[in-house]
Amino acid sequence: MKNDNKSFVLVGATAVVPDLLYATGFDAPDPVAVVRRPDGRVLLVVNRMELGRARRQARGCEVASADTLGLPADRSPVATLAALLRREGVRAVAAPPSLPLGAAEALRKAGVAVRAAAGSPFAPARAVKTPDELRKISRAQAAARAAERALGRAIREAEVRADGVLLRGGRPFTSERARALVRETLLARGCMDLEGTIVAGGRQATDPHESGHGPLRANQWIVADIFPRDLRTGYWGDMTRTFLRGRPSPALRRLYDTVAEAQVLGLSLVKPGAIGAEVHRAVADFFKKCGYETGTDADGRAFGFFHGLGHGVGLEIHEEPRLSLRGGALEPGMVVTVEPGLYYPDLGGVRIEDTVVVTETGCRVL
Amino acid sequence: MKNDNKSFVLVGATAVVPDLLYATGFDAPDPVAVVRRPDGRVLLVVNRMELGRARRQARGCEVASADTLGLPADRSPVATLAALLRREGVRAVAAPPSLPLGAAEALRKAGVAVRAAAGSPFAPARAVKTPDELRKISRAQAAARAAERALGRAIREAEVRADGVLLRGGRPFTSERARALVRETLLARGCMDLEGTIVAGGRQATDPHESGHGPLRANQWIVADIFPRDLRTGYWGDMTRTFLRGRPSPALRRLYDTVAEAQVLGLSLVKPGAIGAEVHRAVADFFKKCGYETGTDADGRAFGFFHGLGHGVGLEIHEEPRLSLRGGALEPGMVVTVEPGLYYPDLGGVRIEDTVVVTETGCRVL
Repeated sequence: MKNDNKSFVLVGATAVVPDLLYATGFDAPDPVAVVRRPDGRVLLVVNRMELGRARRQARGCEVASADTLGLPADRSPVATLAALLRREGVRAVAAPPSLPLGAAEALRKAGVAVRAAAGSPFAPARAVKTPDELRKISRAQAAARAAERALGRAIREAEVRADGVLLRGGRPFTSERARALVRETLLARGCMDLEGTIVAGGRQATDPHESGHGPLRANQWIVADIFPRDLRTGYWGDMTRTFLRGRPSPALRRLYDTVAEAQVLGLSLVKPGAIGAEVHRAVADFFKKCGYETGTDADGRAFGFFHGLGHGVGLEIHEEPRLSLRGGALEPGMVVTVEPGLYYPDLGGVRIEDTVVVTETGCRVL
Repeated sequence: MKNDNKSFVLVGATAVVPDLLYATGFDAPDPVAVVRRPDGRVLLVVNRMELGRARRQARGCEVASADTLGLPADRSPVATLAALLRREGVRAVAAPPSLPLGAAEALRKAGVAVRAAAGSPFAPARAVKTPDELRKISRAQAAARAAERALGRAIREAEVRADGVLLRGGRPFTSERARALVRETLLARGCMDLEGTIVAGGRQATDPHESGHGPLRANQWIVADIFPRDLRTGYWGDMTRTFLRGRPSPALRRLYDTVAEAQVLGLSLVKPGAIGAEVHRAVADFFKKCGYETGTDADGRAFGFFHGLGHGVGLEIHEEPRLSLRGGALEPGMVVTVEPGLYYPDLGGVRIEDTVVVTETGCRVL
């Protein structure tokens, strides 16, 4: 990675900057500063109040605060790190594009130039999961699966009103109530859908960013995309199932079957050495061959298969590697979703998603 | 506010940049870009896929995407905004210190200089809550209160083992189980403790950033700080109660009584025109007068009253105004916590916190 010869600086709350959590294992609500030296050593700078806890919890890094570095104790972690770097003669550092502008300005004020790096030096290690990380992702994934099951059961057991609206306990079973059911199931397993849960039926399911609202109905596909974070470990899971209560029209049935077949194709192509972009393209070509076109309608609305086939999952819900036009080579231990989908506003939407780990020979669904 | 004559740029996911949510009402998982013109008009730039939903949900702002502005449709929202500003001849903008470095670089590449502003032009409006915002905060606050009650009941009903450990259902009642109980109660009210919940007893309660772990015990103060976010509205609540099962020693009893008295003093001083820093100092002076010193021990660990008396609550759990050394004048409609606390590692910790709205004559507990 091209910034390996520069110190790499991270600033923020460890809980929300995944590289920080990965590099230090420390869960801090207030901003801390980290520098990864060119030789790979990591220094974590916290405020004085956090020093004791950081020393107990952090791993794989040194821990310091302003006073332990012989600097004024009231300096913020980033100002402390800036002064330290200046003292050491470091004149330029790299940082992620997410580095707060205020942190960049604090470093520059101390005479340390900052440039946004295209990638993170932690990325290669983060993309390949350790057995311990796989266990953590599997735990979040098990929660997602349990929630899909609970939701599937609720849809199966719902009454169908004459107008097609699903009823549960005599009241319309809405996307909102479905989400509450999902949350309850996740929470019982120590997980939470911090970025939301999608339960969207009919036309709503054709907009991948519509999380769904109002009553769910029979004879329509209902897309349920559940991506919980384990609140203790910080690792995510990701799973999508598409449900239908009643009877699908032949066109809806074919839509589902085609996506299901595309997912098997995608899973069969995920293996060491495969190129993410090529896996994505193979599925896109398959859809085209089946007669499902991708494009944009007169209102600028996309239809067909217009998102990436998959993405990495770990301390972020979307991380490297990608199964999309910019995806590179896969390696054993990488974790990716495989989630083909087809969306046509006048017909409906279907997406099927599993999260897999690349093995020595292919992949295994988590 | 001193950047009123400059355009102010925000970039990020609306769900995590409170100013964005406040300025647009739009809840977007992917980065969008916003510019607030010097005359107060707001433009929201989203990617094409989000255009329809943004037009339906956003309020109080214009909505655009690259193609509606006559720019290449594949440009990111920030690159689109940068090109637009350049086209309009805007050469310099202000931004919050949290602006991602990558966004700053995209603007600079388009010839638009970016400087981190000390404050946000949205801050004055955000600090004074509308009746609608007060209702939303009260709803989150009611969830926090319900959770405190549930926790208080559980502590009261716990069995006490011979060694002092509290038992619930025959098993040790731990900080972790207490947090699960809190979460369950919050969730039933559509709220969630996204930043964690503190249930810490004994010595753990003396570190305000220790969220608590292991069995809770009798005859110790147990600090329970609950700050949920309403998942639908995005507004926060904040409340702390300190519980004790059994019998406090005279020193523990006096610790609690002093904090309780300090809270009444703090509440009595919160009124229009009062200066946040002076309210904080009055409480700090009161503690000193009562013989409770504040300082740092040989290990660099703080003791006494070493955090601010309070902070604003709204779309952020910590926002303006402050009741601390940097707190300014209070106005009707502002919402602040009043949360004195005393912490002594060898004795214990007590904190009592309510969230109040400044009225015409004083304040009212939410």
